[in-house]
Amino acid sequence: MASPSSTSSLKTAYPWIKLPLITSAPMRLISNAALATTVSLAHGIGFIGAGSDISSLSEELSKARDLLSTSPTLQTKYNDTLPIGIGFLLWGAPLTETLTILSKPENTPAAVWLFAPQTSSQLKEWSQGIRTVTSQKTKIWIQVTSVHEALEATKTASPDVLVIQGTDAGGHGAAQGAGITSLVPETIDAVTSLCNNNPSIPLPAFIATGGISDGRAIASALALGAQGTCLGTRFLAAHESAIAPGYRNAVIAISDGGRTTIRSSVYDTLRGTTSWPSGYGGRGVLNASFRDHQAGMADEDNKRLYEEAVASGGDEGWEGERARLTTYAGTGVGLVKRVESARDITVGLRGEAKGVLRRLADLASTM
Amino acid sequence: MASPSSTSSLKTAYPWIKLPLITSAPMRLISNAALATTVSLAHGIGFIGAGSDISSLSEELSKARDLLSTSPTLQTKYNDTLPIGIGFLLWGAPLTETLTILSKPENTPAAVWLFAPQTSSQLKEWSQGIRTVTSQKTKIWIQVTSVHEALEATKTASPDVLVIQGTDAGGHGAAQGAGITSLVPETIDAVTSLCNNNPSIPLPAFIATGGISDGRAIASALALGAQGTCLGTRFLAAHESAIAPGYRNAVIAISDGGRTTIRSSVYDTLRGTTSWPSGYGGRGVLNASFRDHQAGMADEDNKRLYEEAVASGGDEGWEGERARLTTYAGTGVGLVKRVESARDITVGLRGEAKGVLRRLADLASTM
Repeated sequence: MASPSSTSSLKTAYPWIKLPLITSAPMRLISNAALATTVSLAHGIGFIGAGSDISSLSEELSKARDLLSTSPTLQTKYNDTLPIGIGFLLWGAPLTETLTILSKPENTPAAVWLFAPQTSSQLKEWSQGIRTVTSQKTKIWIQVTSVHEALEATKTASPDVLVIQGTDAGGHGAAQGAGITSLVPETIDAVTSLCNNNPSIPLPAFIATGGISDGRAIASALALGAQGTCLGTRFLAAHESAIAPGYRNAVIAISDGGRTTIRSSVYDTLRGTTSWPSGYGGRGVLNASFRDHQAGMADEDNKRLYEEAVASGGDEGWEGERARLTTYAGTGVGLVKRVESARDITVGLRGEAKGVLRRLADLASTM
Repeated sequence: MASPSSTSSLKTAYPWIKLPLITSAPMRLISNAALATTVSLAHGIGFIGAGSDISSLSEELSKARDLLSTSPTLQTKYNDTLPIGIGFLLWGAPLTETLTILSKPENTPAAVWLFAPQTSSQLKEWSQGIRTVTSQKTKIWIQVTSVHEALEATKTASPDVLVIQGTDAGGHGAAQGAGITSLVPETIDAVTSLCNNNPSIPLPAFIATGGISDGRAIASALALGAQGTCLGTRFLAAHESAIAPGYRNAVIAISDGGRTTIRSSVYDTLRGTTSWPSGYGGRGVLNASFRDHQAGMADEDNKRLYEEAVASGGDEGWEGERARLTTYAGTGVGLVKRVESARDITVGLRGEAKGVLRRLADLASTM
């Protein structure tokens, strides 16, 4: 199986994309067919966030086919696949049922994105299973949060793409980690060395994610050696994403994400998503729930207050000193200033990034 | 006073530099005259780390003058200043005595770097005092760790340079923060907007620091909008730095900094440097002291074990499961592979970064 090892080979694997490659993260519950297909129709790669629950996946894929079929510019199929991806959380998603869905030719996605296995053998089982049922048409993307994980995943599953997630990312990631500034170059060096020393392991492509919210950060990721980028928080503000209005308003309003967001497991405790393997935490806006947790409030009391806030509905639960609802967001949240269509976000980011690359080219010519 | 607001104006303010600008951080106890002058002689800007204690500053400046005077290529003085900088920790360094030293014409540095004030009025007092005693020859650099701090510092002290420190940095920084990927662009936007709306506040230049260990990261910082970069951890491995051999060996040996380092206040507790204002922590290699602290060991017991490790001397205190000595380092520590002269580091990084910029220029031409 050919593995995209350079930027140009990404275009071979995903023929509809324009460079620099922008992908939208498979955010659980939020990244639906509308968001994923709009990003792909704008010549990025959109991912549906199946997460740990595939009960609505067939329906989302049906919606995705409908949305893609209306496009005059994009073919419904490239390389016999739908031009979108699907993200799975391996600690919860059921492999057998997933393979049944993916094995139907009309469902075959261009890529799957695997994250958070309970054991590294799960990475192997999922990769092999999906490659088998899709006759290797579906590319395997694996999200990693450290150099160690990247080496393990590459040895175990020979991914087509490694998504290197820095700790600035919103939502779930390693409880402790580095930003992409150091993580991306060190990971690329280590994985490249591994593959050079083991010719049976093809060199994956590298996608950077975590803290990327604008064209400057996209260009910076390319400087770090990544061949493409993935954004989550920026797409929270897309019209198409499935997100409560209060949550979306909070994303627009909040700035200075290093001060206003924090990575913690408390939000999982409140929401009852407690099946994550150890070593993960979710970055969200620092709110009353977190402060009470820090101050020693018992989880059951904190959870009761959280559930009261959910039950009271309305948007006041998301913002301000007394906010209790979970606003997962990365440190780049302060660069998200308005609600736009995912198409405008994707096209706009690509234009911004190209502008930055041209500025750097001018700068280089003076040095 | 002219303020460098573009990359080319950095060359006006610091005429000996070559681009892209590489500076070495004023690491307390480590960044001495030898390190600072070697970086400047290699056409970067080296900073002496006076920190909170200026008792040896006059002696270090005397050494710096001697080292600079031996250079056939660099003048001892540019714009009537020594072509180096000095870093101060405002919570501890005495202003009056510092001004006495800096007011001597032979001591006037090209730049001072101010960090960690107890109150923001300290930033104003130090900036005004130094500008007055050096007849505005010494440029004011202020290190900030958030958008909020950047706006406050700019309003308060009109710095010539803002050093924007991401949380990947080694040693002290904000206990909670963002990496440069999001922090640098958001800070530049916010400060630029502030200065545009207040013509009396000159736009500072922006230097990125935190997690930058190689030429890829330097180029990425320029993509983010910074006009120059600062590296600390990489210069720990310089022959010239004042660092214990065991510490330096650990820096070379350790990889995967997101997993192996952590930002904490425990290292300050152990070392007795407890005068830092609240809200700061030091990133260092995760060791037995940290694990014992996390497991609930009383500070006095932990400190006793630390002091025993110091007293026992030798290099075994720095590495391995039982290491107790503090190895401050950023997440970029895994990209530091060998001990070199600060000259080779500086020249090598500049060459690497230019290579990355040329690669990006080629890439841009294909898009």
